[in-house]
Amino acid sequence: MLYKNIYDHHSLPYEKDMALVGRSEDSDWFETEIALSEKRFKYYFKLDDGREVTYFCASGFLNDPEETDSFFYPYINGCDLLDLPEWARGEIIYQVWIDRFFDGDPRNNPPEVKPFDALPDRNTYYGGDFAGIIKKLDYLAEMGVRILYLSPLFLSGSYHKYDVIDYTKVESIYGGEEGLVALVQAAHAKGMRIVLDAVFNHCSDQHVFFQDVLRNQSQSQYAEWFTIHRFPIEDRTRDYDSFGGLIPSMPRFNTDHPDVIDYLVGIAEDWTKRLGIDGWRLDVADEVSHALWKAFRRRLRRVKNDLLIIGEIWNQAGRWLLGDEMDTVTNYPFMKWLRNFARGEIDANRFWQRMSANAMLYKTPIHDYLVNLVGSHDTVRNRRFVGDETIHELMLMTMLCFSGMPLIYYGDERAMDGGEDPDNRRAMQWDYNPSFRDRIAALGRIRAQSDVLKKGKLIPFALSDRALAFARVLRDKRFLAVANFDTLPTNRIQVDRKPTLLFGRAQTEWNGVIVPGRSFALFEEHT
Amino acid sequence: MLYKNIYDHHSLPYEKDMALVGRSEDSDWFETEIALSEKRFKYYFKLDDGREVTYFCASGFLNDPEETDSFFYPYINGCDLLDLPEWARGEIIYQVWIDRFFDGDPRNNPPEVKPFDALPDRNTYYGGDFAGIIKKLDYLAEMGVRILYLSPLFLSGSYHKYDVIDYTKVESIYGGEEGLVALVQAAHAKGMRIVLDAVFNHCSDQHVFFQDVLRNQSQSQYAEWFTIHRFPIEDRTRDYDSFGGLIPSMPRFNTDHPDVIDYLVGIAEDWTKRLGIDGWRLDVADEVSHALWKAFRRRLRRVKNDLLIIGEIWNQAGRWLLGDEMDTVTNYPFMKWLRNFARGEIDANRFWQRMSANAMLYKTPIHDYLVNLVGSHDTVRNRRFVGDETIHELMLMTMLCFSGMPLIYYGDERAMDGGEDPDNRRAMQWDYNPSFRDRIAALGRIRAQSDVLKKGKLIPFALSDRALAFARVLRDKRFLAVANFDTLPTNRIQVDRKPTLLFGRAQTEWNGVIVPGRSFALFEEHT
Repeated sequence: MLYKNIYDHHSLPYEKDMALVGRSEDSDWFETEIALSEKRFKYYFKLDDGREVTYFCASGFLNDPEETDSFFYPYINGCDLLDLPEWARGEIIYQVWIDRFFDGDPRNNPPEVKPFDALPDRNTYYGGDFAGIIKKLDYLAEMGVRILYLSPLFLSGSYHKYDVIDYTKVESIYGGEEGLVALVQAAHAKGMRIVLDAVFNHCSDQHVFFQDVLRNQSQSQYAEWFTIHRFPIEDRTRDYDSFGGLIPSMPRFNTDHPDVIDYLVGIAEDWTKRLGIDGWRLDVADEVSHALWKAFRRRLRRVKNDLLIIGEIWNQAGRWLLGDEMDTVTNYPFMKWLRNFARGEIDANRFWQRMSANAMLYKTPIHDYLVNLVGSHDTVRNRRFVGDETIHELMLMTMLCFSGMPLIYYGDERAMDGGEDPDNRRAMQWDYNPSFRDRIAALGRIRAQSDVLKKGKLIPFALSDRALAFARVLRDKRFLAVANFDTLPTNRIQVDRKPTLLFGRAQTEWNGVIVPGRSFALFEEHT
Repeated sequence: MLYKNIYDHHSLPYEKDMALVGRSEDSDWFETEIALSEKRFKYYFKLDDGREVTYFCASGFLNDPEETDSFFYPYINGCDLLDLPEWARGEIIYQVWIDRFFDGDPRNNPPEVKPFDALPDRNTYYGGDFAGIIKKLDYLAEMGVRILYLSPLFLSGSYHKYDVIDYTKVESIYGGEEGLVALVQAAHAKGMRIVLDAVFNHCSDQHVFFQDVLRNQSQSQYAEWFTIHRFPIEDRTRDYDSFGGLIPSMPRFNTDHPDVIDYLVGIAEDWTKRLGIDGWRLDVADEVSHALWKAFRRRLRRVKNDLLIIGEIWNQAGRWLLGDEMDTVTNYPFMKWLRNFARGEIDANRFWQRMSANAMLYKTPIHDYLVNLVGSHDTVRNRRFVGDETIHELMLMTMLCFSGMPLIYYGDERAMDGGEDPDNRRAMQWDYNPSFRDRIAALGRIRAQSDVLKKGKLIPFALSDRALAFARVLRDKRFLAVANFDTLPTNRIQVDRKPTLLFGRAQTEWNGVIVPGRSFALFEEHT
């Protein structure tokens, strides 16, 4: 890379070598860091393969670029930089489905609840509540969990509560606002943070605004708050836009409308102030208008300047991560490619290619915030998908050593089983598989204590088709993680001096390590 | 292109052929238009060279992509679409340097003014004013000019007024606020619009806010409005950030600061309301914070919903043209490559490659708004740069038939001469070169009347190394423009039926046309 101050027309540019940081089927990515004495620079790139030299610049490929052919970074204004909450960087998130987690106070239960060992249908309640979560905070802390992400909890007629009837009321069956405040305080006392689910794309057809439209039709003051195809409309028809265009009981808000934006952002503002929560997970974030999320960030960050904002986005999310909307997104591509790898559909090389291509969609500081997961309430349980408990374990362990924020879907730490919705939302089985959970918890604790795992650079290396091997490097510290999905032991991995085995199973020698079949190992290298 | 609704997991995707719309040294660009019944879709691309087929999708190049490998456009929210002012599309802009244009009212002149035929230095005034522009509105209208872009006009101690002392006062030497209101009204009466220059990156060191900092140092209420390296500061030193880090008499605003953003956007709001102007040109737009321009658009578009916002950006400007900041930018790459071509440093093929690469940085609707120019107050006069009046004329005519908004720098329509600043800012020579001006005006009038030239698609075609030949196509209308920079006539250009010569010089035959050396011709084809 060649660079200098924009207004410097005389000096030779500075030169900096660039390192290969990613590689896919069709691209190589190079990166370097530069330090500037002034906040403006222009730059271009020299390509030299030892035989031929050319330059890549704003005017394309040139053999003899002029200064005006440079790319320009005209000025670095602080307020335009990414402003990510440092407290969240690399920390473990635990996703709690409140009704299915633990019943701490049977007095607030709905009239009929199933026992925790019964299988769910689409109407079942189990009685889980805020009081239950409070009782299990130590259980979560033991796994190194730092952030609790709670399922929707505003008044709703359904068990899942993704169709809100009243955004101003906390569900009484979970313990109401008082119960939620108690949970936030108890979590904070243990150093844990709370993230709520903002379901702003759609609401319940029982919501008063939509009911008003049904009653007053085009004369309703909320007529423009939804997307009505033609008046008059009837409930639960295709007369209006709904969630995904598919579920008429969940009318979609018209998030183009300034009043809708103002109302929903106001809701989030109020709760953030009243509850003292630490972040929001934005449901169906990519179908809501950018205008809404920009107003959301602007106003919510004024309420709490280090609020964490996670978008639920399944695909390429660059458009939402420019700094003025979300901090990070659900990294479903991680799940997709790790599951493909786990089932043997792709090899390790292809896995790393896709992880590089995915990371390169986002600015570097975001990499430590990407919310990695192996499953959620919207997927088949990972244990079921891969059909093997050990493979599931290797995947969780890979995730717990990866760059980003690992998200554990409740019960996955016990390898709970479950098929398609609603079977993937079974009540927590508290006595199931304790040894599995202990191993996950042990590695979670290591991560919670380790800046290398939370903040280190990830460097993959080739070992075999069926093993994922990668280093995490932070300043002078270097960890090595190996997830061997093969039944056979790995080849010997060369290291300079005998590494310390921090976790898992391996043969360590003075200059190499071997990881047995279907095993995971985490080492610290001594350099 | 293969596409379908995001939630459609069963039907086969729709297929649409894509057309080659641009080509550079290293890329080909293909494009198609699709119509959707629902506002969400997923898509990927099929590549077929007749021998081999592969697919390009979010997972890279695949021979057998799955639906989850698609690119996703999750939802099209209206408020996130580009909202460009239709009235401005493709119209001619004329850049007036007020002091140098015409002295309509000698009573408001500063004590000393030079005669219009004297050469300028860096302190000279000539007495030009709003009254002078009013007297010349017919002159401008005759050239098809639709938009006047005025040089800075707020109170300032310099002749150029890019260092504002008081943003709330219009220069009395130009005729004051009253004179400006009269100009806006007179222009509107003739169907012309007014764009003012927003110089918000920096101000004069005589500005009261900066004077307050000099007086009260770190105790000043404006201490954070500028970027102070260390207190105490002295005037005209390197103690604080200034324009380009180079000109200490112009301290740079700290556009990170919410109060600075609020103040400057408020200034633009007030003037837009009070004067009824139609747009702003944003000075040094790329050094001011994105946060400021976002607030600017949000608040100014509430004042006037079709306000035109032009950023002064010389280089790749994609980051500012996502829809939430500016409508368009100064297209200096057009100037750069056309000048290079005019001087014979590149051939026509390379010119078109760079024009394609430049256009592909921006969404298609923006192409008709890019502000093309052959020179400005910040460059050597084009006539001087290319050293030949006829070549200058061919360049202006190319610009007047190009897609985008042609900007004529005052005097260029007379091929006025001028070197580096301040020589490029000579007073207007009203008697110079009338026949040159008549030819430019005639073509300007044709453009002003022609939706084909204002809104048609531009399609370049290969003719020779030294001729720029391109069609402009709108629905069933098709124009053909040929600028022959060679001394020899062009080869015969094949057309289906004898075209009508709308402007310029050419031999037209029943199935072809020939354009003489150093000549321009514009045809209408009959298809």
